[in-house]
Amino acid sequence: MKRSLGATTIAHPVPVWVIGTYDIQGKPNVSTVAWGGICCSRPPCVAISLRKATYSHGNIVERKAFTVNVPSEKYVKEADYFGTVSGRDADKLSKSGLTSAKSELVDAPYVKEFPLVLECKLLHTIEIGLHTEFIGEIMDVKADEGVLGKDGLIDVEKLRPVIFAPDSAGYYGVGKNIGKAFSIGKR
Amino acid sequence: MKRSLGATTIAHPVPVWVIGTYDIQGKPNVSTVAWGGICCSRPPCVAISLRKATYSHGNIVERKAFTVNVPSEKYVKEADYFGTVSGRDADKLSKSGLTSAKSELVDAPYVKEFPLVLECKLLHTIEIGLHTEFIGEIMDVKADEGVLGKDGLIDVEKLRPVIFAPDSAGYYGVGKNIGKAFSIGKR
Repeated sequence: MKRSLGATTIAHPVPVWVIGTYDIQGKPNVSTVAWGGICCSRPPCVAISLRKATYSHGNIVERKAFTVNVPSEKYVKEADYFGTVSGRDADKLSKSGLTSAKSELVDAPYVKEFPLVLECKLLHTIEIGLHTEFIGEIMDVKADEGVLGKDGLIDVEKLRPVIFAPDSAGYYGVGKNIGKAFSIGKR
Repeated sequence: MKRSLGATTIAHPVPVWVIGTYDIQGKPNVSTVAWGGICCSRPPCVAISLRKATYSHGNIVERKAFTVNVPSEKYVKEADYFGTVSGRDADKLSKSGLTSAKSELVDAPYVKEFPLVLECKLLHTIEIGLHTEFIGEIMDVKADEGVLGKDGLIDVEKLRPVIFAPDSAGYYGVGKNIGKAFSIGKR
């Protein structure tokens, strides 16, 4: 028996991603989002949504670029902090002790300590309601050597991305490998 | 040191969601996607992306509705199967032994055995490239009683949603709770 939870934003799993942008003065800002996902394979694109009131929103409109930074579990406190304070009120990166580097491909900074980054050029801006969806073309993906397996692919158990539970506001780690895609469903 | 992995669709975590639609004859179809995410809080919206060639794509254009069904770990084989065969060639639901029910709110079916479902009315259609992004307004979220905690919220460790690793094509379960959002980052 299913129970109605109402017209609300409950879905699982959703990511914990830190968006890197420059403001008009060139100051790097970081902000955490859970509303986002890959949205196209060719060109490779990722969508993230931000409220118009956020500092990052204005930065993306201005600079037409952003990075998606994937924190590992050990940076969950920093990622949480980046989602609770505005870049208008604090230099979140320096307060957290983390550092940024300028992307060589897009007009946005990335978080050096985070193991995975997607460098994105703004492609589409969709006004939905409270949130604006920004679709970015992924110009490159960069990963720390330490999260790659011998095959050169990301080892999820080394990456240890964070999962967000929207209704209970909990953060979760990833669990075990439970099968191979495009394979275990074949009969 | 970061290594470039190229302009590609690697992000973590991404979901494993099964999209429910009716075709023009009213036959239910299910198809698995990993490209998607929540994209707006008010109105509550979720975005999913499908290639134009898919059967589900035509169904959504026709019916202007879809459901997002979240499989639990124990249905990972069925979810994988739903992503590898077209609804043009097979009645995937009956082959899998799973069953659908008609949503009372939108013109789409949902998977009865899956523990969480979002019932969506098509709001925007964004042509990006190989994929079309469909933004659906979430009219209701329904969950099995068995995945709810005493507080009435979803208990992620009971829900056990599946996570997809795009580059290695692996499925993963969720791990342990690692903190409370909007809280653990406060200093």
